This record gives sequence, C-alpha cells and structure tokens, in this order.
Amino acid sequence: MSGFFTSRWVEAPEGVVQLDDALLPAGFRAGGVPCGLKGDGKTDLGIVVCDSGDVSSAILLTLNAAAAAPVRVCRDHLRQDSIRAVIVNSGNANAATGEQGMADAISMRDEAASELGLDPEQVAVAETGVIGVPMDMDAVLSGVGGLAAGVDRQGAVAFSEAIMTTDKFPKRCTLKSGGVTISAQAKGAGMIEPGFATMLCFVQTDAVVEDANGLLRKATADSFERITVDGQMSTNDTVLFQASGESGLPLPDGLLDAVLLQLALEVVRDGEGATRVGRIEVTGARDDQEADLVARRIANSPLVKTALLGRDPNWGRIAQAAGAALAGSDIGELGPDVIEAGELAGEETEAELSLRLDRGKAKSHIYFSDLTHEYIVINAEYTT
Amino acid sequence: MSGFFTSRWVEAPEGVVQLDDALLPAGFRAGGVPCGLKGDGKTDLGIVVCDSGDVSSAILLTLNAAAAAPVRVCRDHLRQDSIRAVIVNSGNANAATGEQGMADAISMRDEAASELGLDPEQVAVAETGVIGVPMDMDAVLSGVGGLAAGVDRQGAVAFSEAIMTTDKFPKRCTLKSGGVTISAQAKGAGMIEPGFATMLCFVQTDAVVEDANGLLRKATADSFERITVDGQMSTNDTVLFQASGESGLPLPDGLLDAVLLQLALEVVRDGEGATRVGRIEVTGARDDQEADLVARRIANSPLVKTALLGRDPNWGRIAQAAGAALAGSDIGELGPDVIEAGELAGEETEAELSLRLDRGKAKSHIYFSDLTHEYIVINAEYTT
Repeated sequence: MSGFFTSRWVEAPEGVVQLDDALLPAGFRAGGVPCGLKGDGKTDLGIVVCDSGDVSSAILLTLNAAAAAPVRVCRDHLRQDSIRAVIVNSGNANAATGEQGMADAISMRDEAASELGLDPEQVAVAETGVIGVPMDMDAVLSGVGGLAAGVDRQGAVAFSEAIMTTDKFPKRCTLKSGGVTISAQAKGAGMIEPGFATMLCFVQTDAVVEDANGLLRKATADSFERITVDGQMSTNDTVLFQASGESGLPLPDGLLDAVLLQLALEVVRDGEGATRVGRIEVTGARDDQEADLVARRIANSPLVKTALLGRDPNWGRIAQAAGAALAGSDIGELGPDVIEAGELAGEETEAELSLRLDRGKAKSHIYFSDLTHEYIVINAEYTT
Repeated sequence: MSGFFTSRWVEAPEGVVQLDDALLPAGFRAGGVPCGLKGDGKTDLGIVVCDSGDVSSAILLTLNAAAAAPVRVCRDHLRQDSIRAVIVNSGNANAATGEQGMADAISMRDEAASELGLDPEQVAVAETGVIGVPMDMDAVLSGVGGLAAGVDRQGAVAFSEAIMTTDKFPKRCTLKSGGVTISAQAKGAGMIEPGFATMLCFVQTDAVVEDANGLLRKATADSFERITVDGQMSTNDTVLFQASGESGLPLPDGLLDAVLLQLALEVVRDGEGATRVGRIEVTGARDDQEADLVARRIANSPLVKTALLGRDPNWGRIAQAAGAALAGSDIGELGPDVIEAGELAGEETEAELSLRLDRGKAKSHIYFSDLTHEYIVINAEYTT
C-alpha cells in the first residue's frame, strides 16, 4: 500500500491494508462537535472512548517546565496505564491561565467522565489553541453532553477535525495488519505555532498490548522526538496510546513505529511555511548524546534550513553547525569528504543529508523543515 | 558625546571625546589595499602594526570545533601576549581548506612579518569570506609588500574597510579619554554570514595595560559574548586587543567595555536582515548558567524574533521558550505578572524585555536581532 506511507523514510509493514479513515478499531468510539471555542463554527471539541474496562494505555506529555493546565492534570491526576477516554478541545490551549485554568481543565474532564459514566481519573484531557485567555467553559460544558452521546465507531474523522488548529491538512489513518486494526489522529504544524500551540497525537488499537508504555516510548523516540520545525517545545504536547485488546491478537512488530513516524513526518511537512523536509544523519560520534546534539544543531540551524529552501548544496553550513555544537573541542575542518549535502539542491521534497565524524561509533538523525518567508509571515503578522 | 555611543544600553564614559575615525593611538599604524580577492576592486587586505616592542596584547578566538586555518595558526603559533601586528583579508575565509589552507595562512603571516621586519610568532592572521575555496595566494602575496610599506597613523578607516564583507556600514571609532586614545574596528553582520563568515574586532590603545588578557576577556564577556543574530557560531571569530603603552597612562575604567559593547550592538543592528534589536534580561534564576541558558533560548527563539519584527507583545512566546530551556523541571505557568514584553510593540528600534523567575538570585541578559524576510532572502537566495 502507498496511500498513507508516503515518505521514503518510512518502511510500511508487510501486508498492511488501509481502511476508511473514519473507522476505529473494535472497542473504540469517537466524535467531534463545534462548541463555539473557534468562533467560526468549526468543530473544536472531540472525544475518544474505549469501551473495554481492560484497556491498556500510555501517555507522553511535554517536558516544558511551564506546562499548560491539561498537561498538569494528566501528569498528576490520571491513571496513565488505564485511560478509558480523552476529551480534547482546539481553539484555546488553556495555558498560562493560572488556578482558574487548572479548575477548568478538571471541570472539563469531570463533565466528560460523568457523561460517559467513567471514573474521572481514567479520563485524559488535552487542549490546543490561543494562550493566556480564560476558557469559555459555558461553551465547553454545553458541548460535552451531546458529544458524549454521539460518539460512534465511525467517528475518527470527526475527531481528527476537532483537534486541528492551523494544520493545512488532517493527519490520520486507519490500518489493518496481522489481524489487528490501528487508527491514529495527529495535529500540529510545528513544535509550536503562533501563541502556544501544540503537537497532539492519539492512537487506538484493538490489539492486545502488555507494555503500552514501553511500546509508545520506543515509537515516539524514533518519530515525534526526532522532528523539529523551529526548535521550539510546546507547553501542551501530548501523545496518547490506547489498546482495547478486543482482537485478541498482538500488535505486529513495527506497526506502531511506522504509523507514528509517518504522522511525525506529516507534522514536519505541514510545519509553518514548510516546503521541504530534510533528514540529517550524523555518524561517528562519541556517544548517542553527542550524535543527537550535533544532528539537532544542524537541523535547527537557520542557515541549513534556508539552504534547504534555496536548494543550495552548502556543506559549509553543516560543518559550521557541527563545529558550533562541539564548541571547545577540536574536530578539525569538515569538508565534502565527510559531508553529503547534494540533495539540498535536488528537486525532491525530501532531502537526505549526512555528516561523518571521526570520534566514535554513535549515530543519530533528525527530520526538519525548511525556513521560509511564510514562516515569517505567519509568526510576525499574527497578532495575539 | 553621542556620535559613537548611540545605544541606550551603553553608558559612555565621562569626558570621552570622539576623534577622527582614521586616527590610530600613538605607536600604531594601519592600512588597507585591494589585492583582488573580492574581485570587485574593493579593499580586501589590511594590516595593523604596533611599533612598540613593549606591546601588551590579548586575542580571543572562536571555540568552534571546526575552526578555520587562521584561527588555528593564532591558537598554536602565536605569542598571544605580545602581538605586534595582524594581517587580515576579506573575501576568503580560508576555512575547510585543509593542509593547503594552513600552509597559506602561515605563508601570509610570514610574508607580512618579513615585510614589517617582525618575528612571525608576533604576527596574527585573520580571514573572512567564502569557504572551501583555496586562497588566491598570488593575489595576497602580491598585495602584502605595498600594504606593509604604506601603513600609517591615519590608516584606521582604510583598515576597517579592508575587513568588511556584507556589512552595511562600517563599525569603528577613535576616542580619547583620561589622556589615552583608543581605536577599534569591527566587522560582522551576524555570528555567521552566507557561507562561513565572521565577527572580527581589532582594538588599539596607547594606554599602559598590564593585564590585557583579563581586560579583554571581561569586556568581551559583556559584549560580543552577549549577542546573537541567528545563534550560529562562526569558524573564524577573532577579537584582538593591543596596547602600545606610549601615553604612559592607564586605561580609564570601563572604556574598553563601553567601546566593545557599542560595537557588539552595531553588529546586531547590522545583523542579516535585522530591523530591530532586543535585550532580554532574565532574573531570579538558580545560578548564572541557568540564567544564561534561559536568556539565550529566548533570544534565539524564532517566535520571539518574529514577534520583535511584527511588534507583537506576545509574552507567551517568552514563557514557552523559558519553559523549553528548563524542560524537565517545573516552573509553573509564566504570565504577564513576571514577563515584561510591552516594548516588543513599541516604535523604538531597541526593545527591552524581561522575565522574572522565582528560583534564585542569578541573572543574565542577551542582545538579539529580529528575524525578517531579508534574512531568508540573504540566506536562501545566496549561492555558494
């Protein structure tokens, strides 16, 4: 299949079949409604619920030290290994909203739990949108009842639309492989968008999953944690994985990894103003940390990002960024014998770059977008 | 006086008088000639020489791990405390040029030493311009003789022009204070320009200076080390300070600091595409390192930089960057009670911003430019 797995950097698992994007795996229902937060009548409130009391789940939250209220609620007041439902709104990030924001996030969660007949500590909450603005809780609370009553197994598209903000296209899939179904919905057009915004990703499967946390951490480490648009870490980032177990079958090896990597690359491709996606691989580093440091410095260099835009095979900018990452040590001069930058000049949307150090055997890679005029327009001409 | 000290952030030393920019302090001669490296007939080769055998000097070099040949020569083959002369070219950075580049930098230095009748180990070399291109040594060597013969005490303007690359305006001054004269010439339009380029600064005084290294380190720590245009560290950055001692008087307190800070701010103001300069002060951090980390993260955030361009008093972007800098800890939500961002929206070119943390008593500040369309034009449409 090729419909969903479009990137050259994602290996689609063998025998995987694409299903209707709206369909959820057995044991899940979802939906989305407009409650008025966005103001333009678009859907802005969504729920995913797992009907199985034996749900196995994991959630990863931003490490930003100034995290938003919903992140704090999930961090401190959630049974993270058995999350039955998540309620999400777009249009307001509920960030930098103080004690009232915390109360609002809890109130939103409690209302959803009540309407769904669930323990509040098994309901996650995620929010994305403008910052520093009090939540319109009348709007949210008025929407929850109808939303909870209307969730169904064909609700994945409606849910995916309810979580979008400035995304240019939805990022979602429903796939079948090895007898199990997996669906996922993501949003994000950068690690952060104007104001605060966010990368959110929700994944559902009917597979039997024992170590949800381990699986999710591994898949995220190789996908969402390897991307950058503008090097900024949001206050609201959340990735949630839920497994109902209803298929009675295990999750095929690599399926979750492939799904999250494709979605992560779509976030980069939809990065603010982005026209191209680069992948920089650094080899020969002393240790993983050093390899990662160098790769990230290159991926976040505005000079490398503008070279990607300008189709300029400027290996010197990669050398400079690597040298800056390792400032204080001496790696000699880096030239075209150890830097491959030719694809910067290529016609393809995806460009593969590499740097070979001569310090050890560790390696790392990072995916990144280019830096364009539209990024400036979006971020300089947007007014809070 | 107001001619040179234009920034609100620089306190001009009392009683300082501005002299003709071309004039050097007693004991110094300088000059600049076109040797053909730039190709457009502009001056591209300069020398400053101190006639006193008792010169006291200090030099600070980039920490970039992939430093250029001239930096390596100065690091490894220079008597840094008694530098009699420096030879500089613009048009070719002599970076990533391998063993031939090292030989060329040494040859250029040796030729200058020979023509000036000096010990080669007392001659510094600095270069700035394109990268990965072999030096046209015929051009350089043909220029040195005439240049060395023509240096004179009125040569500071000619020298300052010989070190410019994409600078929109020269950055230089000659000042008198407390009976001593100090002159300085800087170049740079960013920590790095298209290809490799560089911040260079040369300072001469006839004051008697005992701890040249200590004075220069302190002044640089509060000036060139506190600025950022695009967060990139060049392979060629060099700051050289020479004191002839011919006035017999000490350097007035704060004079060197004020000169270097004003020049550093001019580099930011002339940053690629820059239209405004911001100053972010972070207080209440646990220690100096933490304060610096947070201030730099804010100053290098493309979201803060585009807010400076767009005159958007978006305090949320400062909160997000601070939270990202301290990822993994918890600093609570940061709001307008601890963030001053109003000057982002002001009409002035210089905008003062602050963030008050509640973790300790350490503080730091960083000066930075905005991120504009012209930065993208310069860096995406420039072809090596």
